[in-house]
Amino acid sequence: MSGNRAAVLHAPRTIRVEDRPVPRLGPRDVLVEVRAVGVCGSDVHYYEHGRIGRYEVVSPLVLGHEASGVVVDLGPEARAHSVGDRVALEPGVPCGRCRECRAGRYNLCPYVHFLATPPHDGAFARLVAIHEDFAHALPEMLSDEAGALLEPLSVGLWACWKGQVTAGTDVLVTGAGPIGQLAAQTALALGARRVLVTDLEPRRLAFAQAHGAETMDVREGFPGARGTEADVLLECSGNENALVDGIRALRPAGRAVCVGMGPDVQATVPLAVIQERELVLTGTFRYANTYPAAIALAASGRVDLDGLVSARFDLESTERALRAMHDDPGTIKAMVYPSDGGSGR
Amino acid sequence: MSGNRAAVLHAPRTIRVEDRPVPRLGPRDVLVEVRAVGVCGSDVHYYEHGRIGRYEVVSPLVLGHEASGVVVDLGPEARAHSVGDRVALEPGVPCGRCRECRAGRYNLCPYVHFLATPPHDGAFARLVAIHEDFAHALPEMLSDEAGALLEPLSVGLWACWKGQVTAGTDVLVTGAGPIGQLAAQTALALGARRVLVTDLEPRRLAFAQAHGAETMDVREGFPGARGTEADVLLECSGNENALVDGIRALRPAGRAVCVGMGPDVQATVPLAVIQERELVLTGTFRYANTYPAAIALAASGRVDLDGLVSARFDLESTERALRAMHDDPGTIKAMVYPSDGGSGR
Amino acid sequence: MSGNRAAVLHAPRTIRVEDRPVPRLGPRDVLVEVRAVGVCGSDVHYYEHGRIGRYEVVSPLVLGHEASGVVVDLGPEARAHSVGDRVALEPGVPCGRCRECRAGRYNLCPYVHFLATPPHDGAFARLVAIHEDFAHALPEMLSDEAGALLEPLSVGLWACWKGQVTAGTDVLVTGAGPIGQLAAQTALALGARRVLVTDLEPRRLAFAQAHGAETMDVREGFPGARGTEADVLLECSGNENALVDGIRALRPAGRAVCVGMGPDVQATVPLAVIQERELVLTGTFRYANTYPAAIALAASGRVDLDGLVSARFDLESTERALRAMHDDPGTIKAMVYPSDGGSGR
Amino acid sequence: MSGNRAAVLHAPRTIRVEDRPVPRLGPRDVLVEVRAVGVCGSDVHYYEHGRIGRYEVVSPLVLGHEASGVVVDLGPEARAHSVGDRVALEPGVPCGRCRECRAGRYNLCPYVHFLATPPHDGAFARLVAIHEDFAHALPEMLSDEAGALLEPLSVGLWACWKGQVTAGTDVLVTGAGPIGQLAAQTALALGARRVLVTDLEPRRLAFAQAHGAETMDVREGFPGARGTEADVLLECSGNENALVDGIRALRPAGRAVCVGMGPDVQATVPLAVIQERELVLTGTFRYANTYPAAIALAASGRVDLDGLVSARFDLESTERALRAMHDDPGTIKAMVYPSDGGSGR
Repeated sequence: MSGNRAAVLHAPRTIRVEDRPVPRLGPRDVLVEVRAVGVCGSDVHYYEHGRIGRYEVVSPLVLGHEASGVVVDLGPEARAHSVGDRVALEPGVPCGRCRECRAGRYNLCPYVHFLATPPHDGAFARLVAIHEDFAHALPEMLSDEAGALLEPLSVGLWACWKGQVTAGTDVLVTGAGPIGQLAAQTALALGARRVLVTDLEPRRLAFAQAHGAETMDVREGFPGARGTEADVLLECSGNENALVDGIRALRPAGRAVCVGMGPDVQATVPLAVIQERELVLTGTFRYANTYPAAIALAASGRVDLDGLVSARFDLESTERALRAMHDDPGTIKAMVYPSDGGSGR
Repeated sequence: MSGNRAAVLHAPRTIRVEDRPVPRLGPRDVLVEVRAVGVCGSDVHYYEHGRIGRYEVVSPLVLGHEASGVVVDLGPEARAHSVGDRVALEPGVPCGRCRECRAGRYNLCPYVHFLATPPHDGAFARLVAIHEDFAHALPEMLSDEAGALLEPLSVGLWACWKGQVTAGTDVLVTGAGPIGQLAAQTALALGARRVLVTDLEPRRLAFAQAHGAETMDVREGFPGARGTEADVLLECSGNENALVDGIRALRPAGRAVCVGMGPDVQATVPLAVIQERELVLTGTFRYANTYPAAIALAASGRVDLDGLVSARFDLESTERALRAMHDDPGTIKAMVYPSDGGSGR
Repeated sequence: MSGNRAAVLHAPRTIRVEDRPVPRLGPRDVLVEVRAVGVCGSDVHYYEHGRIGRYEVVSPLVLGHEASGVVVDLGPEARAHSVGDRVALEPGVPCGRCRECRAGRYNLCPYVHFLATPPHDGAFARLVAIHEDFAHALPEMLSDEAGALLEPLSVGLWACWKGQVTAGTDVLVTGAGPIGQLAAQTALALGARRVLVTDLEPRRLAFAQAHGAETMDVREGFPGARGTEADVLLECSGNENALVDGIRALRPAGRAVCVGMGPDVQATVPLAVIQERELVLTGTFRYANTYPAAIALAASGRVDLDGLVSARFDLESTERALRAMHDDPGTIKAMVYPSDGGSGR
Repeated sequence: MSGNRAAVLHAPRTIRVEDRPVPRLGPRDVLVEVRAVGVCGSDVHYYEHGRIGRYEVVSPLVLGHEASGVVVDLGPEARAHSVGDRVALEPGVPCGRCRECRAGRYNLCPYVHFLATPPHDGAFARLVAIHEDFAHALPEMLSDEAGALLEPLSVGLWACWKGQVTAGTDVLVTGAGPIGQLAAQTALALGARRVLVTDLEPRRLAFAQAHGAETMDVREGFPGARGTEADVLLECSGNENALVDGIRALRPAGRAVCVGMGPDVQATVPLAVIQERELVLTGTFRYANTYPAAIALAASGRVDLDGLVSARFDLESTERALRAMHDDPGTIKAMVYPSDGGSGR
């Protein structure tokens, strides 16, 4: 298998699996044979609508940005890895020079190259090139899937850091998809006192409960009801009601972190509550400097990544993978295996 | 003059000037003969409506919480001041014991005694008692009016601290009332690069400009238009449009601080912008640990308090003072002088 | 048993167990029948030398400040607890009014009343009075010993917070006494990637290893040797060499937190290293706002307090308890049980 | 004048002015004709000793890193400036990729190219090449000298930021050389309440006093004597006694920032004081993200850079410039003018 087989989005709901050229390597790039790629809600959104907000798919695009693999070639100045090393891909490579990069906020770099964000191709492909410093060595005890899922774990960890979760913090997580699950597990790994996860899908709530969280079915109550109080809200559903109820449940000086993105670009929030309690409302956009910590959390078993995977597909079945969530709402995470004929592990 | 003459709110738009008992002193209280009291928008609101949100005037109430005066008596354990000392009153005395107090957020203490917030009487009176640690020694170079206006200066300083204003920060101040003016001057005193103040009252804009700010009449444009960008928004108008335009004008990682309180308890904000740029939206509720710094800013001339005063009234004319803003929208700050027959200085 | 039996230090190495008056209660105090008290190194130091630095025992003093017990009486305004409630004592009650208290640094309050710090008596006694807000409700799953050991856990947690330990942090703990052990366990509970504990007592190192840390016998190497690197040093031995080696082992922007107090009031530190790497060197003095989080860490089993206890004494044997560490260097924590005749649990 | 005339250090105390090749430009570099270069203490140290700590001059080296000039050529991808633009050079260009760069601490980048730090040549030369993002546009109101002195201003600003100087902060600056002067002025521009500068050179103290600071001749007292207290120490002398006295003068939770580098790599500090007051001791290594703020401080007149210049030299006289401080200890800052025959302005 010497070409670069890839699943390419040509139009909304139209994926074709094709041979693409092998990526050219920059001086410090590594070429990675992709072993596992997670399907993210943003992939599904591009697949269904051909755009997310101002990002529009105008020419054929390879989706997929939660990826791990094996190094198979090195650019001429790449020194960090050897051929054969297993790596997790941090999918956004920033410019390293702009105002945001210089301030350590490289996730906000306007010049970032991010896998599967137009016009940059992603990882539903056999081969991907990436700067060596954004390929993170994967310890042996982490599976290929875990390597791929360091990406959503990074999202969850970033949210916890923005929310300043530490020992004794009470955390409310609204939305029990993959991000919500990983945010909840990470909060506990950072010392949170109590983590309450809300959703309406029983299997998701059961998964959260099995991983140490308390849970609430939002059809039977809402956060803030029954005197529930929290120091931090990690809003992972993109639902405006969840945000509003969550804010109301916060104690003075609490933090509301918006991780999920809903269909609307605006939200009506209880401003008087924010003012009287001096709450902080903020949002996350990807993450920065999370991978080393995420690897440690997963490698020590404090966060369970493998357990999230509930559906597996080979590259030829990428389109089915993108539909898996809709076909079965209990699906937490679908994975695509681009380089091994779909047998998984 | 030995009694405690006071202007008492009996019903909306009904103030009667009466003799009240001399306040009893707690062990560490000082008795202060009030020299100058500023009229705040909240006083006006109580006067007109008899309530602010959940705070309702149910029995007769003395308004006024921006005050300075002279110590005329001491509680048995008070040691910080002597009779004859000039002091500025920090009007909120917290419990010192609760969760918020122990965390240094004493402004959020649910047990606070705050002057002129029901059921606690305020300072439109000849005499007020206050815990000695919340009576701050007033340096000679500060006038009685300046002593009183350390209170709104504290609000402005607290907003700047919440917004993390420092050298090089670009600040947008929406609303050029007393708080907006003092927030703008404080931002410059903290090293801000550029401070843009918006309002629609020409005299207020002129005052801001004379004190180092750039200005914009909101009828002729809005912040964020013409590529205006800021790191910090200090929203001092309580106007939802100002908040929304201001948020849109923020750079990545910017801070939006809601100081002004509008008529509505909620606001519709551009959440996608907050998320994509990882903005922080927060609000201020009074202030904590600001008085020593506020005194230093005013005493060194870096902030001009005296210049704010545009109308002066004796205690018998308190009701006219409370109407001054409505009678002349160019009024920035009206002052009441409870202890000297209204001659001012 | 109605009196207040207490172990009283009359002179260095001279403890007499005597009947003392029952403490008088302030308005919001609770009277606590003490169930378990840990022996701290500072108790031992007072016992042996009659002083610690500027704190000198000039009149007979009851030692002991790591305590838990049962509420047996209430001051007239105390509402937080009921008679019969089990509580852990936070031994320092600050003034709530001074500059430090108002800033949330109540551990630095110069007016604090701290158990067993002259001239305030401590808890090697049947009965102790304390302000209700510094008596923390003890959950059922926590033993009396655990309740007492929340105090050293607070010291360890405060050190971790000062060091900004979070997910991915590599931590070096020098000194495996009770504080070092609890600092190490807490660091792991906050998400630390790797915790390396150094000491020279094999049983202490074994205890640390059994609780998740890596260990190093300082006679066989030193931190920083073998390329060891850390983000945070928690110096819990009071040994100058440990501090110096630990600082040298820190990565750029690392934090060195001095918890242990050595015999000298000064130390020679590698200043050029601190400058070139922009390290932060700081120290801890007691703790603030730690108890709720410490209770949660212990109650969830993330930190093991009971396992620390290696020797038990009744009140009459307090002097033996104070000598236990010297008699057997493998002793991690000796406990005194003032109210039950010494049967322990 | 088409060559690249440069003052080259061949051995300690041996400078030869020679023609060097015109620097080659990287894709995003700009070529700058140098107009003004300040003489820094580190230049003097290299000149006298041929090394600073582990940095050793092994082949001929051009010194000088405080520089401004005019853009005379552009690399093929440089877009930020045009030929003819006046720029200030931020002399350290980091890699943009390493752990430190990604965290926003680019001053700690181990791969940084820093002007005049072996093996990288500096700016005592007619022409220097630098990455366009580290050439900062110089506003019209700033002189060439001011452009050069943004570098030491950055050092002073970074120290103030590390010390968290803001409104109300009391600051002690030990050492009134250029860095101490600029740190003191910056502290005032950030709102400091009181800035006390110590030195033993009367002209330096007079300069500090003329710029708003209080001063103390260290032969007549020392900081901390007479009850002097501070929140922040900015140690700019490299003197161990100054550091020790300064630490002792700090209030609880104060910050001691070591800016000056002394002859020794270690220092004996009052550790018990650091612990009891929970002080923070740290150091600065260059600066990060300071230039935009430094430009604003200077352009608004809040910091006086031009006034520092007390001696002027043409390029041929570079060696005399390097000796100016020793020849006259009242010299605050000597400048070299590489491109105009030495006429200065």
